[in-house]
Amino acid sequence: MKIGDYSFDEYIEEVKSFHGSVAPGMIIGGYMVVLAKENLPDGEFFDVICETGHCLPDSVQILTPCTIGNGWLKIVDTGRYAMTFYEKYGGEGVRVFLDPDRVKGWPEINSWFFKLKPKREQDMQLLLEQIREAGKAIFSVQRVRVKPDLIKKKKSKGSIAICPQCNEAYPVKDGEHCRACQGDSPYLQDKKVL
Amino acid sequence: MKIGDYSFDEYIEEVKSFHGSVAPGMIIGGYMVVLAKENLPDGEFFDVICETGHCLPDSVQILTPCTIGNGWLKIVDTGRYAMTFYEKYGGEGVRVFLDPDRVKGWPEINSWFFKLKPKREQDMQLLLEQIREAGKAIFSVQRVRVKPDLIKKKKSKGSIAICPQCNEAYPVKDGEHCRACQGDSPYLQDKKVL
Repeated sequence: MKIGDYSFDEYIEEVKSFHGSVAPGMIIGGYMVVLAKENLPDGEFFDVICETGHCLPDSVQILTPCTIGNGWLKIVDTGRYAMTFYEKYGGEGVRVFLDPDRVKGWPEINSWFFKLKPKREQDMQLLLEQIREAGKAIFSVQRVRVKPDLIKKKKSKGSIAICPQCNEAYPVKDGEHCRACQGDSPYLQDKKVL
Repeated sequence: MKIGDYSFDEYIEEVKSFHGSVAPGMIIGGYMVVLAKENLPDGEFFDVICETGHCLPDSVQILTPCTIGNGWLKIVDTGRYAMTFYEKYGGEGVRVFLDPDRVKGWPEINSWFFKLKPKREQDMQLLLEQIREAGKAIFSVQRVRVKPDLIKKKKSKGSIAICPQCNEAYPVKDGEHCRACQGDSPYLQDKKVL
């Protein structure tokens, strides 16, 4: 079975190149994308939600036009191993999730997924073989409707102003100062321009 | 000037292929990555924070090993046009931001960045030329230290259990049900397995 336009081996190379390692979740994510697309109406534009930030977003970014930076991929972290492809205006979508009942038939995938043995006891070769053999067999598919607040027209940043505190540009809608100067800065120390 | 391993034209092709369009912010983001890397100690491993979800994360994903799905790239949305490359254990980092004082010298970039004229009046060709000419000249660089809560050792998901409500796998640390069943589901309707 091909994964998008890639053979299994070509996909593995893409994963290495983009993700940095052949993470089992990236291969599983590849088959999830294949299954989601098969269940979409032909030629429809779609956005994607990943329900975890682990691995799955990178499968989507390799195999679809949806990326974090173009806004067509969102992460809504419910902790579940699932992704949803949905029509971006109405919100009707197809959700693919790793199904605990189905994964039982693949003991090495099952023990990896549920962390049933220490990492050093995992048989990576066997795990990848089972993932390849299982293909789409370990997932289930649902129809869902995405909540309206998530499918609102892509928010414009609106007007841009200069923050009077840090002197950087920021969206006016954030208030009289930028959000960093309101306390949400990710940094400890003050500015020190080189 | 090269952008990573790419010539300007090769980078444009990478941007088209990954991001779907030649967004000006993606080209600017490319030069931000170049400048950040030049200011890092040689051979150091680093993580990246983007302060906006618009465009910049995709420049980082094309040009560095850091992706959303492998956890080495985070978005901390302060609304500012900036990215920080930092040492992942200590948090010392280099922050590159688009500097309003510097961008003044490039009128087409300035008017794009501050939205000074309607999109249909923008001269895309001139804008891209100015971005290419300006290169690294429109940014400033700072030393910063990332807050400890953002550089904590990558959190393990911990043990995995089956949610008694939706019957999907989820991290036990999230509680007695998965977060979706606790009310954080991105969907309106209940499950309907196909």
